This record gives sequence, C-alpha cells and structure tokens, in this order.
Amino acid sequence: MGNEILRGSTINSNATFISREMASLGLSVHAHRVLSDNQDILKKGFSEALKENDVVICTGGLGPTLDDITKDVAVSLFESTLIFDKKIAEDLEKRYGSSLPSLEHQATVPTNAIILANKVGTAPGFIFEKGNKWLVLLPGVPLEMKEMFQQEFLPHLKKRAKREAPIYRRELHFFRLPEVAVDPILRKYKELYPEVDFGIYPSLGLVTVSMSSLESGKMDLPYHLLKETFKEHIYESQTGRIEESIHEKLIAQKKTLSLAESCTGGALAATFTAISGASNYFKGGVIAYCNTIKEKVLSVADETLKVHGAVSEETTIEMAEGALKLFSSDISIAISGVAGPGGGSREKPVGTVCVCIAFANKEKWSWTFQASGTRAMIVERSIHEALGVLYSKL
Amino acid sequence: MGNEILRGSTINSNATFISREMASLGLSVHAHRVLSDNQDILKKGFSEALKENDVVICTGGLGPTLDDITKDVAVSLFESTLIFDKKIAEDLEKRYGSSLPSLEHQATVPTNAIILANKVGTAPGFIFEKGNKWLVLLPGVPLEMKEMFQQEFLPHLKKRAKREAPIYRRELHFFRLPEVAVDPILRKYKELYPEVDFGIYPSLGLVTVSMSSLESGKMDLPYHLLKETFKEHIYESQTGRIEESIHEKLIAQKKTLSLAESCTGGALAATFTAISGASNYFKGGVIAYCNTIKEKVLSVADETLKVHGAVSEETTIEMAEGALKLFSSDISIAISGVAGPGGGSREKPVGTVCVCIAFANKEKWSWTFQASGTRAMIVERSIHEALGVLYSKL
Repeated sequence: MGNEILRGSTINSNATFISREMASLGLSVHAHRVLSDNQDILKKGFSEALKENDVVICTGGLGPTLDDITKDVAVSLFESTLIFDKKIAEDLEKRYGSSLPSLEHQATVPTNAIILANKVGTAPGFIFEKGNKWLVLLPGVPLEMKEMFQQEFLPHLKKRAKREAPIYRRELHFFRLPEVAVDPILRKYKELYPEVDFGIYPSLGLVTVSMSSLESGKMDLPYHLLKETFKEHIYESQTGRIEESIHEKLIAQKKTLSLAESCTGGALAATFTAISGASNYFKGGVIAYCNTIKEKVLSVADETLKVHGAVSEETTIEMAEGALKLFSSDISIAISGVAGPGGGSREKPVGTVCVCIAFANKEKWSWTFQASGTRAMIVERSIHEALGVLYSKL
Repeated sequence: MGNEILRGSTINSNATFISREMASLGLSVHAHRVLSDNQDILKKGFSEALKENDVVICTGGLGPTLDDITKDVAVSLFESTLIFDKKIAEDLEKRYGSSLPSLEHQATVPTNAIILANKVGTAPGFIFEKGNKWLVLLPGVPLEMKEMFQQEFLPHLKKRAKREAPIYRRELHFFRLPEVAVDPILRKYKELYPEVDFGIYPSLGLVTVSMSSLESGKMDLPYHLLKETFKEHIYESQTGRIEESIHEKLIAQKKTLSLAESCTGGALAATFTAISGASNYFKGGVIAYCNTIKEKVLSVADETLKVHGAVSEETTIEMAEGALKLFSSDISIAISGVAGPGGGSREKPVGTVCVCIAFANKEKWSWTFQASGTRAMIVERSIHEALGVLYSKL
C-alpha cells in the first residue's frame, strides 16, 4: 500500500523482506502489487488477489492518519465490525502514556480477526479469514513490519503451511563463492534428484543454496555432496547472516574486535553494532576517510601512503595494525578501496578493494579483489568479503 | 517481471526509479505489479494492466535465456511478427563482435513496435501501441533500463504527456516533528481545499507531506500555510533525504565534518558515506563502543564518565570536542545512547539518547531525547534527530 511507493519516494523493501521469508519457508510468492491509498482501488485489489491466492499480505495504511484506510477496507470486505479493545489500549497507555492521540484509533480492532500485537509501534496487525483464504494486514514501517512478521505472524503461517503440503527445507550458505561456480552443479543435481527443488540466491559475494522436498531424506545426498565440494566456503548460520555467526563465535571465543574503515565508511561497524550484544566484543572503530587521519589516528606511515597509495594492501595492513594497538583488541579488520562512482584510475579502477585481517598474535591476512556495480554494491561486497575470511579464521 | 524479485533476491529498484521519473513529470503511477516468468501469467497481467492504464511499462525478460519471454508475449498480444533487423545486428557486432551468442536473438524485433536502442547492453526495448494505449518493454538490468528510459523513452513520453492533463505536485519535508502534530491540520485542509490531495509520510522523526492537484495554484495556500506553521522544522530537499541536503550544504559552505558515535555504531557515518562525494567534507569518525576508547581516543575525562555516565550530555559534549580536535574538522556530531534491548536502567531507560553538535568556533548544542521501538529504530531515530538539528544550524 502506499502512494509514497508509487511516487518513488520509498523503495518497496517490505515486499523483498516478505518474499525472502516466504522463500526460506519453501512457500512461493505469486505476485507483488503496489496500490494507491484509495478505498475503491484497494477493495478491488484485495478481492482480485484473494481470488487467485491462498494468502494475501498487505503492508501499510494501518496508522491513524487520513490516508490510512487499509483496516476500514478489510473490515468492510470481510463483513466485520470494529470494537474498542481494552487490553490493547492499556498496553498502549503503558508504553506511550494516556495522551497518545492515536490511542483510541489503534485500540479499535475488527471483531472477527486474529490480532497481531505490535510491540514496537502503535498499530496492531490482523489476520482476516474467510473460506480458507487469509488477508493479513501488517504495518508499513519496515522495522515494525519485520518485528510483527517474525514474532507474531510467522507462528500462524507455519501452522497453516504445515496443514497443507509439509515441505522440508535445508539451506547451505557460502562466502566468497561466485554464483557461476555453483550453478552448473545445481543444474546437474536438478536432473539427478528430481524430487528436490533447488534454489540459488546470490548476494554480493555470499550465496545461499536452498533445497526443498516433500521427503526429507531425498535431500541428504545432494546436501552432503554440495557441502563437501565447497567446504572451504561454507558458513553455518540459522538466519543466513554471516555477521551473526561471527558475533556468536567472537562471544564464545571471548575475543575482541576493532575496525579501521575507509571505503566502507562505517557500514562494516554498523553491520556488527546492529546486533544486540555487540558491545561484548566490539571495542570500536576508526573511519579514516582521508589520509591525514590514516596517519594521525591509525599510525599509517606517510611513506606507505606515498609509495603504495591509500588503496593498497600495504596501507590496509598498517591500518589494521594501528587499530589493534589503538583499541587493544584481539582482532582487527581494515578495508580501503575505490567505492566510486568517481576516484578510479587505470591502475586502480572503481571497485578495487583491499582488506587486511590482523590478530594480536601477529597472524595476518591481506588481499585485494575487484567488486563491480554501484557504490552501495561495492561497499556490501567488501563487507561480505571481509566477513567471509574472518569467519574462516575463527 | 521476474522470479528473482518474487523470491526476494532482488529489490525492485526499477519500479522506484521509474516512479520517481514519472512523479517529476507530474504523471501519476497507478500501480506496480511484479509477475513471475510465465507466459500465461504475463499475458493476463499485460491485458489487465492495459485495460486500466494508458501506459504500461514492463522491465525485464528481454534477454536470450529460457525464462526471457516478455518480447514473445507482447508480440502475440499485439498481433505482431518478428523480423531480423540488420542495423541492430551491425551495431551489436560492432560493440560485441560477431561471436556474440545472443546476436541473432537480440536483433530480431517486432515489425510494428517503436524500437528503443540499448547503447549499454544487448537487448533493445520496444513501444507497442494499440488504441492509444502503450505497452513499453525495457531491459531488467537497472543500468541499461535507466539509460534507455532517459535517453530513448523519455522523448516519446514527454511528447505524449503534453497531450494529456498534467498533475501538479509539491512536497514539504520536516525534521523533529511528530506525525500527530501535522495530521489534524491536514484533515482540516482536506475539507478546506477539496481540489488538493494530501498525503503524510512519517519516518522515525522525519515527516513528508505531499500535495497534488490538477490546478497548480490550488496548492499555493495550504503549501505556504503549512510551511509557515512549521517553519522551524522544514528542510529543503529534492529527494526527501535530509542527509543529501546536508551533504550539499557542507560542500557549498566548504565545511568539514567528523563524528564520534557510540549507540549509532557507525550507522551515522554510513549515512553520509553512502553518498558519492562525501569525501569532500567528511574527514572521519570514531566509533567508541566502550568507555576506555571514549577516554583514550576522544579524550573524554574519566571523571565525566564516572559522575555522569557514558549516556549523558556531559559525555557527548566531550566526545564532540574530542572529535573536532582529533579530526581537525569544522563541525562534529557525537551520539551516545541506550539502543537496547538490554542496558536500560530506571534513570536511563532503553531509547535514552544524548546528542551534541559542536562547531570549531566553540558554538555547541546538546540535548537528550527518548526514542522508542527496536534497536534499529532507535538508531535511525537518533540519526534523524542529529541530522535535523545539524541542518538547522548550517
């Protein structure tokens, strides 16, 4: 839902998130639609979508403001009525105080829908059901939507998915492995194991291979073959996020981490600090966006910068060593590169990135690689490169 | 088009780009749809979309592989036939050599469509026309699509748009303004100015109000009234992103910036460094995720931390001053807070955040606020708070 998406002010990241969650459950998404904030259009859109699909998930339009019409449209479509829910009101009052202007609106909910609690915002979500079809309303704010999807909606969805075809699913996650290395093998497996559905999901240096089947045992052979073939690239993960796996390893091994970032500009630090509990091992980082800071704060030698340049393994090695010392950490990562779109040269084109991982025991690894795409893609690929190697060294 | 979007492997950035281009022309986008790579689904989708819209733009599925079916479906729908185009073939040969495997496929085009040249890739685009309706096929690769959209398609679209009724649009962006402060006013305006459509888009401390109307002049009064009412919260922006406005101001004013981050953990730096050209003003930052680093690197006094704690205005003032000195910058921002979910106390609950903005000329501003929601929401709100105040001081 939402004119802000149709105007191009907001990218539809909710659809991507939900699609990924569905794929990881072995459920297929038939279509995405974005509709404008208009009662008639929305009603028609819901009706059409419910005709063709078992579950329709709608995000947005649950707030208290004038263009928030989703709840009303669904109530009319499912012949429901609205009722004031004292428990929701009490919870809102506890969290936001009794003067919250939207309190009455948000505590007024359909009588015949399952309520999905919003623990991080004010608008509850809903599951409407009729004739084994579901219309699910979730908030539009991505962080509220994600929290509600995973904590509140997923248990309902899993129960329902189980009632229908029980699909077994396994995933393998790889770092520093190009999609083209895995793809031909999966095409062969597709013929050899026709009872298994294979999916391949590349993400800027990381690759996830998913298998699903109606019989769990059918996946054993391809799973283990694939695991053996690319064993040097595998990372174990519940969520697919390599930073979470490293987070757990660092806590378990009681090791501390510091960072020296240039081209990633704080994004590597933000990757770790987004995880609650990062303060257990993350001591801090320096974003050295100019050479004087590399020298002054991270003690990179003036000569190193002059002879080899800011984007060089020599410089990243000294940046990593400087971070180890400055933060007294057990491990440090340094990244320097040309994120573009400007700043490239013939020798070091846009996408040239150098990384160094240094341990306090003097072990260190440095390497250079070539990323491609936009600035944001080069930054993300750089983060995945660094995390992949760090994972393998822990 | 595309299963990769429906699986969540790719975000639909093409829809955002095209929507933004349309909005800037005063054309309104009625809906987005993402459909899977299937002939029947695509044919039905095209037919439905063409019934309800004057122009349907489709990206993706123009390549030579088995799941690229868009061209064939359009040819059948518009009762066209395919013909080998020698000029396209010659151009491809010049750019990619005669051994390009997809050469024949890409040079085979519909007889009754306008051809849109692809100057940066291999797949040409097409405009099919019937009964004053357009079906436009563009490549799926974002860089090829953008180039073709702007260089090839836009001239055709502008000619056509001139013939029809334009919609005028204006936007106002506010920082540090709760949605609920604006909403009652917009509800009143909706009655007072029935020829204007109002929309309100809140985003963790930032709010955008949009207006659209068939008559440009009808928006003047509500626009200026709203601007006057909340003049202390307004920021000027083409894209709505406050960091881009600050980016431009800092470059224009030739001022440099440094950061001292605690709870935002690198995310504030990443907000700036995501913008190409940030190195013109951004000197660097320190992520001080533990007290020893606040003392050692940012020169925060041991006593300040002991007496007031890490989350206090006293500490953020010293962090900001430390960053100014360390990076020799004109401006610095320091943020310290409890991002949660753990770490809160009765006195400083989760969501308590302190910010200080310091100028090298000794001016400084510090304040404390209470954010709510998840860790990620608290971080984002903190960034918007800091950017809002910095904007107002530049």
